[in-house]
Amino acid sequence: MKLGIDAKGVFIISATPFTDTGQIDYASADSLVEFYLERGVTGMTILGMMGEAPKLSDAESLAFMSHMIERVGGRVPVVVGVSNPGITNLASLSHAAMDKGAAGVMVAPMRGLATEERIYSYFAQVFAALGPDIPVCFQDFPLSTGVSISVDLFTRLVLEFEQLVMLKHEDWPGLNKLSAMRKLSQDSGARRVSVLCGNGGIFLPEEMTRGADGAMTGFAFPEMLVDVVGLSNEGDSSRARDIFDAYLPLVRLEQQPGAGLAIRKEILRRRGAISNAATRAPGPKLSAEDCKDLDRLLARLDARLKELGHES
Amino acid sequence: MKLGIDAKGVFIISATPFTDTGQIDYASADSLVEFYLERGVTGMTILGMMGEAPKLSDAESLAFMSHMIERVGGRVPVVVGVSNPGITNLASLSHAAMDKGAAGVMVAPMRGLATEERIYSYFAQVFAALGPDIPVCFQDFPLSTGVSISVDLFTRLVLEFEQLVMLKHEDWPGLNKLSAMRKLSQDSGARRVSVLCGNGGIFLPEEMTRGADGAMTGFAFPEMLVDVVGLSNEGDSSRARDIFDAYLPLVRLEQQPGAGLAIRKEILRRRGAISNAATRAPGPKLSAEDCKDLDRLLARLDARLKELGHES
Amino acid sequence: MKLGIDAKGVFIISATPFTDTGQIDYASADSLVEFYLERGVTGMTILGMMGEAPKLSDAESLAFMSHMIERVGGRVPVVVGVSNPGITNLASLSHAAMDKGAAGVMVAPMRGLATEERIYSYFAQVFAALGPDIPVCFQDFPLSTGVSISVDLFTRLVLEFEQLVMLKHEDWPGLNKLSAMRKLSQDSGARRVSVLCGNGGIFLPEEMTRGADGAMTGFAFPEMLVDVVGLSNEGDSSRARDIFDAYLPLVRLEQQPGAGLAIRKEILRRRGAISNAATRAPGPKLSAEDCKDLDRLLARLDARLKELGHES
Amino acid sequence: MKLGIDAKGVFIISATPFTDTGQIDYASADSLVEFYLERGVTGMTILGMMGEAPKLSDAESLAFMSHMIERVGGRVPVVVGVSNPGITNLASLSHAAMDKGAAGVMVAPMRGLATEERIYSYFAQVFAALGPDIPVCFQDFPLSTGVSISVDLFTRLVLEFEQLVMLKHEDWPGLNKLSAMRKLSQDSGARRVSVLCGNGGIFLPEEMTRGADGAMTGFAFPEMLVDVVGLSNEGDSSRARDIFDAYLPLVRLEQQPGAGLAIRKEILRRRGAISNAATRAPGPKLSAEDCKDLDRLLARLDARLKELGHES
Repeated sequence: MKLGIDAKGVFIISATPFTDTGQIDYASADSLVEFYLERGVTGMTILGMMGEAPKLSDAESLAFMSHMIERVGGRVPVVVGVSNPGITNLASLSHAAMDKGAAGVMVAPMRGLATEERIYSYFAQVFAALGPDIPVCFQDFPLSTGVSISVDLFTRLVLEFEQLVMLKHEDWPGLNKLSAMRKLSQDSGARRVSVLCGNGGIFLPEEMTRGADGAMTGFAFPEMLVDVVGLSNEGDSSRARDIFDAYLPLVRLEQQPGAGLAIRKEILRRRGAISNAATRAPGPKLSAEDCKDLDRLLARLDARLKELGHES
Repeated sequence: MKLGIDAKGVFIISATPFTDTGQIDYASADSLVEFYLERGVTGMTILGMMGEAPKLSDAESLAFMSHMIERVGGRVPVVVGVSNPGITNLASLSHAAMDKGAAGVMVAPMRGLATEERIYSYFAQVFAALGPDIPVCFQDFPLSTGVSISVDLFTRLVLEFEQLVMLKHEDWPGLNKLSAMRKLSQDSGARRVSVLCGNGGIFLPEEMTRGADGAMTGFAFPEMLVDVVGLSNEGDSSRARDIFDAYLPLVRLEQQPGAGLAIRKEILRRRGAISNAATRAPGPKLSAEDCKDLDRLLARLDARLKELGHES
Repeated sequence: MKLGIDAKGVFIISATPFTDTGQIDYASADSLVEFYLERGVTGMTILGMMGEAPKLSDAESLAFMSHMIERVGGRVPVVVGVSNPGITNLASLSHAAMDKGAAGVMVAPMRGLATEERIYSYFAQVFAALGPDIPVCFQDFPLSTGVSISVDLFTRLVLEFEQLVMLKHEDWPGLNKLSAMRKLSQDSGARRVSVLCGNGGIFLPEEMTRGADGAMTGFAFPEMLVDVVGLSNEGDSSRARDIFDAYLPLVRLEQQPGAGLAIRKEILRRRGAISNAATRAPGPKLSAEDCKDLDRLLARLDARLKELGHES
Repeated sequence: MKLGIDAKGVFIISATPFTDTGQIDYASADSLVEFYLERGVTGMTILGMMGEAPKLSDAESLAFMSHMIERVGGRVPVVVGVSNPGITNLASLSHAAMDKGAAGVMVAPMRGLATEERIYSYFAQVFAALGPDIPVCFQDFPLSTGVSISVDLFTRLVLEFEQLVMLKHEDWPGLNKLSAMRKLSQDSGARRVSVLCGNGGIFLPEEMTRGADGAMTGFAFPEMLVDVVGLSNEGDSSRARDIFDAYLPLVRLEQQPGAGLAIRKEILRRRGAISNAATRAPGPKLSAEDCKDLDRLLARLDARLKELGHES
């Protein structure tokens, strides 16, 4: 089950659960997988930035990856985040991932790639190191990486590298970039790759009308992402937006850089998906006020979903 | 009418309207002032970043400032954004503003102030150049300036400089910073300065519970800001959040860096506040898809406000 | 006398002299012009970043520009730095400069242009606003602007815009970029534009062998730049390097971002070029230790030049 | 042999040698150790940024560290760079290093620590995770980390954390910061920690007069650093500067971010210290022109040292 340009739906970015003492919590990993799958996700991405991947040791990354892929057990494709300062490490994690049964890997441009020449050359090296058989998702997240890719260059990469099959779209602002990408792909004859959207889904309804195929993000209510993508595809964008709007106050909270992760994990904990909301140091923590904000917003969400006749 | 630490409510950040040929549109400036005042703002801020101030010539800045202050005519206090790479220019615009009847000035730390020593020293110079009689609002907007100020240093500035009377709070994430500021101010005996929140108001309900006194931002529906602040102060935070949530899809759109300004001006145009939505080059423009997004969201807003029994 | 692709030699970046009270010091401006010309510069650039241009008011910029162009009186071409957040202001200063007799203008990409699409589009707007008759020097200084341009895109701009006649080369590291630019220009049939090097001249000997036509920087010993460029062109690169090396300890000091300007102005003051070394606030100041460093280095320079049999 | 505040001299930052196929070259590691020690270094730092540490796997880091510490065999103290996005990993590498016989560890502030509050809190966590027995060198390198620390905060850390014994000083510009640090340490009664200077040594003579205790950098001619530090300490700053100036054209070349590493490794290769100059991907490579520049500069260095009657 390899990642292809026809991937769609919701690839949830999985959190990495930790115990109180900072170890990977494998029991929570198991319940988290079931939580995600029960909510209808069509794929899963592990070891992403929000998965605290850079804070894991190599051994932990491998162990967590193996565990998760095994637990998912082929029910949905699993993408593995492999961004790394060294291409050797990146390639070695990628090969290990594919051996374990991953569907593909996700790579963000390395910090400091200041021109298109350098972005191109970096990805040419990455694709060569991976070989043609590993499908790649390009993560376009300038707020975090400091690297921006133009529509022209992304399309050139698509034209030149068959194994580039997916874009994780999270430039901000990014709506017109998405529209321009779809248009240029058509005009240039480039393959129409899969585009899944990030940023917590905060522009998901608009992105669906601009040509996105779904979402790849870690919002703690995956069912919202699933519903918005599904309803948008069925043409019921009005209902999609009703549901989206109900969750938007929480999306907004989770989308905050850094702090959002603590909120996300606390919601997952409250929902029973994981048993501990801890992040690894250095990581964000919730204040008492944050918890009160969350109480209020979760109560309001329940009430609003009831108004909408929508089961959460 | 000078700005004091008791300022509260909504200080709207005024757009700067232009004609098709890029001149300042004074007729629209007049209608815009009335538009804002009719919606209940308690103050106005001109020549802010979203007011495209850096794209005005010195002469235009002075002329626009005079015009606006005169048009407002003392009905509400006017704050003037005076950030400038040179302290001489900053001081000279500030003095001109006060002479014309401004209530105070707003200053953001200059790009490149990398340590607290340097931020402190910069503001000490600014306060000295302004003299003790000009009230100052500190604009804390790291996403745009690249400069972050700690709660400790801001409190130190409040303790040492009497003329620092207001914080425009738009750090992101910023909720716990706001809580910590209020707490440290209390613990240290520093004056409790006015805190008005920016970022398009995207966290306004939470900020009101954390100790904010209102909003200072340019959202194209000032009445939402006025209602949320008013209802929060009256203790009806549930109703405040209902109204906030109705507008949130639009808040989210306007909060996008760069692109948000074009959306804001287009909404102001559609609402009859200005006659032309043009921004000065280099500035953002709306695409056809952007306009369709806007159509949908404005229609949904109307419907939702009706459901809430709320007149827009 | 318009700037053309055949410009070469040393275009000195002029300091802007101030009095103790922060006013432009026109007497020093006059002596500075004579100081530069006596040392053999072939051009002059005013209102650059190191000229503290962003700290001048519009009126001061215009007055200083007129004064300097008049004082130079056609003895060498004068380039005017016109970078500005607004294209209207940029164009209006450019037109005023050309009316006064400037040879061309220098433009750096605006901060925030994150992709090649955006850099291209910005310069297309700038060139359109200037019209085809104003020769333009592109300032490539990523350390200050945060914007990097690739060799491909610069060459594309040269191919498409006839009025782009010069590159101020100060990317860092930049030697291979310069080589690649010359090579691509040849391969693509693009005009061979003038390349003058910045960064205080710290790589000037190497840059001359890579295809530079000279220097555009503000080092306080313009005669070094003149000698190195001249000797390199005559093929005596060994002597060029002897002289360069003698000054290198000072070049290194002046090249420091921010602080270097205070050192530069102090040297100009000690050499009698200007009567006051003050920078405008917020600006760097020399400490007592800085002055001692300078004393030592200037004494050593004298001694070394004597050893080399070179009159300073 | 633990790192203390009395450390001085030259702690060379060791390169990490690789074979053509990208493996760690342990034979070269051995010859490199001997090369450094023969040139009189008083310490060695491994796994620094210029040591390409982020491109090693965890297993490689541990293996290289063990190998190097063993090879050095107690002849000089070895400091290990342990900066890491996760504090658990940082602490675990630190403990492993100390177990193997390291003298201490070096930590740079994590990217993104935007205020002093956050820098302080990060280091408080780091010191707690390390425990009081591991001596720490703080690496102050804002050009690379994006984080600046003020003199006040560094002094506060020295006052509060006994295990902070050394500063790797490479802020730029940084001379007055160094002076201010020494002064504040005296005024505040803080311990006088060891200050070793980085940036390839490009300001080393000045830094020695400002209170530095030596150098910690990877310049490919460690004997220059040793001579400059030694002669400065003996009071012969004139001779120190003569020697420094002879090497300065090469220092300047090696100090270039990114590219400098390829130059450094090529010089080490030419000098027989390592057998292969390869860097790991993505890493800089020398062009043919770079090699010619190097040929010229090395020949000139030889000639100049002869003139000075100095054996290289």
